[in-house]
Amino acid sequence: MSDSNPISKPLILITNDDGIIAKGIQSLISCLLPLGNLFVVAPDGPRSAQSSALTVTTPLRVKKIKEEDGLTEYICNGTPADCVKLALNQLCPRKPDIIVSGINHGMNSSISIIYSGTMGAALEGCVNGIPSIGFSLCNYDPRANFDTAMAYAYKITKKTMATGLPRTICLNVNIPDLPEDKIQGISICRQSEGYWAEEFVQRKDPSGKRYYWLTGQFINAEKQNSETDEWALENGFISIVPVKVDMTAYEHLDELKKIDYELE
Amino acid sequence: MSDSNPISKPLILITNDDGIIAKGIQSLISCLLPLGNLFVVAPDGPRSAQSSALTVTTPLRVKKIKEEDGLTEYICNGTPADCVKLALNQLCPRKPDIIVSGINHGMNSSISIIYSGTMGAALEGCVNGIPSIGFSLCNYDPRANFDTAMAYAYKITKKTMATGLPRTICLNVNIPDLPEDKIQGISICRQSEGYWAEEFVQRKDPSGKRYYWLTGQFINAEKQNSETDEWALENGFISIVPVKVDMTAYEHLDELKKIDYELE
Repeated sequence: MSDSNPISKPLILITNDDGIIAKGIQSLISCLLPLGNLFVVAPDGPRSAQSSALTVTTPLRVKKIKEEDGLTEYICNGTPADCVKLALNQLCPRKPDIIVSGINHGMNSSISIIYSGTMGAALEGCVNGIPSIGFSLCNYDPRANFDTAMAYAYKITKKTMATGLPRTICLNVNIPDLPEDKIQGISICRQSEGYWAEEFVQRKDPSGKRYYWLTGQFINAEKQNSETDEWALENGFISIVPVKVDMTAYEHLDELKKIDYELE
Repeated sequence: MSDSNPISKPLILITNDDGIIAKGIQSLISCLLPLGNLFVVAPDGPRSAQSSALTVTTPLRVKKIKEEDGLTEYICNGTPADCVKLALNQLCPRKPDIIVSGINHGMNSSISIIYSGTMGAALEGCVNGIPSIGFSLCNYDPRANFDTAMAYAYKITKKTMATGLPRTICLNVNIPDLPEDKIQGISICRQSEGYWAEEFVQRKDPSGKRYYWLTGQFINAEKQNSETDEWALENGFISIVPVKVDMTAYEHLDELKKIDYELE
């Protein structure tokens, strides 16, 4: 941090979906401090499974909670995607050089990407033409050990700042819950096909009315496929999946073109 | 509706993101009634821009509000994706033959797919291996005319029930706000590249504290490309984009594999 001209330092926007007090984002902040000026806009509390949701029916509020040399922190009452939009449009002193989201408490591999607020923030970043990464640790414990995740988050962020990413592509990085010396390496891979076998816990409130809590178990539909993120994580590798905003199923266009959808 | 054995009728699950009282879902219900038994599980109020968000920090509640021959309706306090999960796991008498979401008040073309609750519900359906369609009308007015949208929603749903869809692929259908005789046809197309140039309205509450409303303007990054949904809609065509759950940017895998991410 000996750079005499702070303007010349990279500007790194940080957010997450577990909220500002989560150990994951605090770990991310501490490991990225050597890489530039950190500008944090994070939810004021947990926003797990918020996907790319935006807040449109209630007003958004932000509050600056820290301003130190090289580190500015805001909290926001919205979703992770709201945080990125507010940062880019209202709060950041200039366009960030990179957006880093996480480190999430819990994995965001396979189908979880479509529900993940961590990745919702990264997608929002790359939609806006800024290289963006979501980091997740495969451990849901609020007190999880982030040492391995921090070492790789630092390295992968630094590399991505050097190499860049194509517009509309971001990175989904998942890190096994292992000490550094047990990590088998890095796997550049694809999103595994899978789904959640949902089970709802059904309960009755004191007045006898039924309610549900979402729970469930992840089912990996292609367990043996070593090209997938699930395989990588189960075998001790860090998974890096390039993720794109374009969700078109190009392979199905021709099939649809054969169907006559016109009105009679 | 002369089928004497209701068991043999297709089961059609319907939801939306504008809530049960929206004209769009009521129009969808009325146009799909001839195609099977309708099972509606819809939000109890507006859930626009909820993407694939799930409710995990508050309990979910549902309430049956209608049970007639061929039409059952529930409302739910959750998101569109919650509605689909609850329907599939707790409420439906059997696995639905098709899931139809909408008709949304407002377009869900281009990048809007990643924010859309209408499409969040359709994605949830196809993740669960059920052919799913999201319909949107290019008009945000609560009192919009849905006649054209209803005619095409009926036809496209009927065709999709006959042809099926591959697992993990659903349809994003957008319908121009035009009378039937002004529709130029159907365009099977891809998601246009675009983004929202966000502008937040900044206000102060009675106690002088600042708050923000999200607003903004859509920017189409490839205006002249006739392969895109945006071009189709601007030229009077109904756009049908096949959408897949796998967001891997396959085209970028090789590039990433050249980068050394290992720790020193």
